[in-house]
Amino acid sequence: MISQETIVALATPSGAGAIAVIRLSGKDAIALAAEVFQSVSGKSIATQKTHTIHLGHIVDQGKVYDQVLLSLFKGPNSYTGENVVEISCHGSTFIQQQIIQLLLRKGARMAQAGEFTLRAFLNAKLDLSQAEAVADLIASDNEASHQIAMQQMRGGFSNQIAKLREELLNFASLIELELDFAEEDVEFADRTAFYQLLERIEFVLKRLIDSFAVGNVIKNGIPVAIVGEPNVGKSTLLNALLNEERAIVSDIAGTTRDTIEDELVIEGIGFRFIDTAGIRETKDVVESIGIQKTFEKIEQAQVVLFLIDSLQLIIENENKFKIEIEKIKNKFPQKPLVMIINKIDFLNEEQRVLLLEKLSIINYPLSITISAKQKVGIDELKNTLLSFVNTGALRNNETIVTNTRHYDSLLKALEEIQKVKWGLDSHLSSDLIAIDIKQALYYFGEITGEVTNDELLGNIFANFCIGK
Amino acid sequence: MISQETIVALATPSGAGAIAVIRLSGKDAIALAAEVFQSVSGKSIATQKTHTIHLGHIVDQGKVYDQVLLSLFKGPNSYTGENVVEISCHGSTFIQQQIIQLLLRKGARMAQAGEFTLRAFLNAKLDLSQAEAVADLIASDNEASHQIAMQQMRGGFSNQIAKLREELLNFASLIELELDFAEEDVEFADRTAFYQLLERIEFVLKRLIDSFAVGNVIKNGIPVAIVGEPNVGKSTLLNALLNEERAIVSDIAGTTRDTIEDELVIEGIGFRFIDTAGIRETKDVVESIGIQKTFEKIEQAQVVLFLIDSLQLIIENENKFKIEIEKIKNKFPQKPLVMIINKIDFLNEEQRVLLLEKLSIINYPLSITISAKQKVGIDELKNTLLSFVNTGALRNNETIVTNTRHYDSLLKALEEIQKVKWGLDSHLSSDLIAIDIKQALYYFGEITGEVTNDELLGNIFANFCIGK
Repeated sequence: MISQETIVALATPSGAGAIAVIRLSGKDAIALAAEVFQSVSGKSIATQKTHTIHLGHIVDQGKVYDQVLLSLFKGPNSYTGENVVEISCHGSTFIQQQIIQLLLRKGARMAQAGEFTLRAFLNAKLDLSQAEAVADLIASDNEASHQIAMQQMRGGFSNQIAKLREELLNFASLIELELDFAEEDVEFADRTAFYQLLERIEFVLKRLIDSFAVGNVIKNGIPVAIVGEPNVGKSTLLNALLNEERAIVSDIAGTTRDTIEDELVIEGIGFRFIDTAGIRETKDVVESIGIQKTFEKIEQAQVVLFLIDSLQLIIENENKFKIEIEKIKNKFPQKPLVMIINKIDFLNEEQRVLLLEKLSIINYPLSITISAKQKVGIDELKNTLLSFVNTGALRNNETIVTNTRHYDSLLKALEEIQKVKWGLDSHLSSDLIAIDIKQALYYFGEITGEVTNDELLGNIFANFCIGK
Repeated sequence: MISQETIVALATPSGAGAIAVIRLSGKDAIALAAEVFQSVSGKSIATQKTHTIHLGHIVDQGKVYDQVLLSLFKGPNSYTGENVVEISCHGSTFIQQQIIQLLLRKGARMAQAGEFTLRAFLNAKLDLSQAEAVADLIASDNEASHQIAMQQMRGGFSNQIAKLREELLNFASLIELELDFAEEDVEFADRTAFYQLLERIEFVLKRLIDSFAVGNVIKNGIPVAIVGEPNVGKSTLLNALLNEERAIVSDIAGTTRDTIEDELVIEGIGFRFIDTAGIRETKDVVESIGIQKTFEKIEQAQVVLFLIDSLQLIIENENKFKIEIEKIKNKFPQKPLVMIINKIDFLNEEQRVLLLEKLSIINYPLSITISAKQKVGIDELKNTLLSFVNTGALRNNETIVTNTRHYDSLLKALEEIQKVKWGLDSHLSSDLIAIDIKQALYYFGEITGEVTNDELLGNIFANFCIGK
């Protein structure tokens, strides 16, 4: 199944830098590199040890392409498990292209996206979930997603799945044995111990499945909708959170021209803010923005920030705001909604007393008073946002599932395990139970790649960058 | 003079890729890296051989930052001549920053631009002209500039200078010896042989100085001005040459809104095109574009393309164009001017005959008929452009000077050599001749860096990128 061709790609980012690294992998990678590499020592790299570095020149037909350092990795002791050569050349785009073109002329072919890692998987250097973690690691842009990808790449998740699979496999083989002796009606597999195992597996699977909620959030960021009437300071709040002038801020009502999404990382967790553009036609917030549009935004969000101008709250009937908040809570009872009273810097002492009275009438538990402009109360808001994320698993360094493919397989495996449990409860015959066990084993295998197919691999590795 | 600090920088281009390389250099680079690196083999890198690669993890206070490959170079066998460690990590910007920040916390400091190469120079791994070639090599974006930089980096130029310097030094020491025996009036230095040496040095210096014209052109590209009345097809010609839709092309006269510069590489030589915006007020080309503006453009250019609409040439008096060309030739007698008759695709058979008649009346030797739109005659034009570059030295792999600093030193050295020659001719006393010889030696030393100062080094290395 593994192609015998030597593949080549630039492994470092494109563009000019001090150095660039060109990577070759394949059975003939060293022989191919030896054709164009003249070491300063005069020795051929073919005779050199693995994990050594050699200074020399890339030369072909008398033309010197560059002075380079060549790193030698002999299979299976390499990233891909094949012979690998890394050429560290000077960083001009011109030189990179010249050397890669020379290697192509000598018989290498351009690597496809993720092909180095695909080969690593096919050569059993990594299992599938570890290979997927490599892509996640390269894509990670904050502490939490980096930590999860690292743990997964180092085999934390795989080991947990492999352990469950192995235990289940032991029982499965005993059940199979019973089938061979079906007529004698013996029980090799201790049903009580088996039931306990199933419950333990069920527990672990449920925990992993639950972790996907936080894993998904960590990987993609938590979407937060900021809603409120025009000119209550949505853009200013967004800027205060992001601490940059990204959104357009102005005193003129309705200047936010379009939905602005931006990301903020608080203690390693990413939050994506959805700032809904205000629509001015009517007075009632939810009606005015158009219930539809506001609800659409909230639909996409996991947390809602409901922004109110403190002066408006003092002047107008507080019931109006109370009703609006209830409308949203009724529609989305599961989504945390934070009531934010903005522009408190405008209030005098008397108005502040009035505001507190109004707030006690509304009596909404999750409320924060802020001044987005003066950056008052922003830290409290950030802490509140963070409180909506269950970072316990993250802190305890537990396995967190971030990959939708893994999540799907875990759900299916859980279903099969529950079928097996039900089968035992119902005293189903061993041959029927065996089928469900096999199916559970199949889904475990899907995660680590023991069970796989070309289409699945194609989908996974197509998301990689070239050169990895 | 060399700082004892360990310096660190990203050596690969910034941004995300499959891998990134972080480089450390300094006496304590290995010890510093060993603090945060745990090899899979369990062995400390401090005990490992130079030019070896080690798989492991960057770990600090129990936190795993990344799985990396660490390359070990023990001074003096390294790029800088010091201990060097290269950490090849996963390519996310987040990981790069995390690892660099960790190394900074451990006591490294960020490298300045060119500081690795500066240390290589100070540790005598490279001479100054070789160090400068490293920057040129990274900046090279075409075959010719790459070839020259490679030759210079490999010491071709330095060796030539060093050889001249050594021979001159031999004579200088003999002359000095004569001074010690001044009262005895002996001649240790054979004056005839010395004179021959001076002539040889003079010849080589002149050749090197002459090469700067082509070297400068290769390094910076040859500026070509395209002039002509509005709507004669300047932008279309530029596009035909560049083979891309970079300039704004339109049938409406005067649509080129501003000066557009773009580069084209023909057989490894770069040409930069300066497309002058047409100004429509009057009819006469040179007057209309404003002699001043046209002349300014031509001033910057080395080659002038004078574009004429073939139909206009047929209709109008040919003397008008002849006068215009003469105006430019009078002002810039040294600059090659190519008369280009465009839009020949519009002409019928009869008009073509008329055109040929007009051309024979004008009788300008360097003229080409083209259709920029149909891409007729473009290759001929490219070959004509190439003919203005003396690529002989390039083809013969001779040393070509591309650096203004070297050029200046060569000019000054030549002046001193000529003074020495004049001194010999005039039978000047040895002590006076010795002064001029020393001065010539000084300028040779400036090129290779045997003579230097902090300010000069600062200027040179500030132009490098960080990480090199």
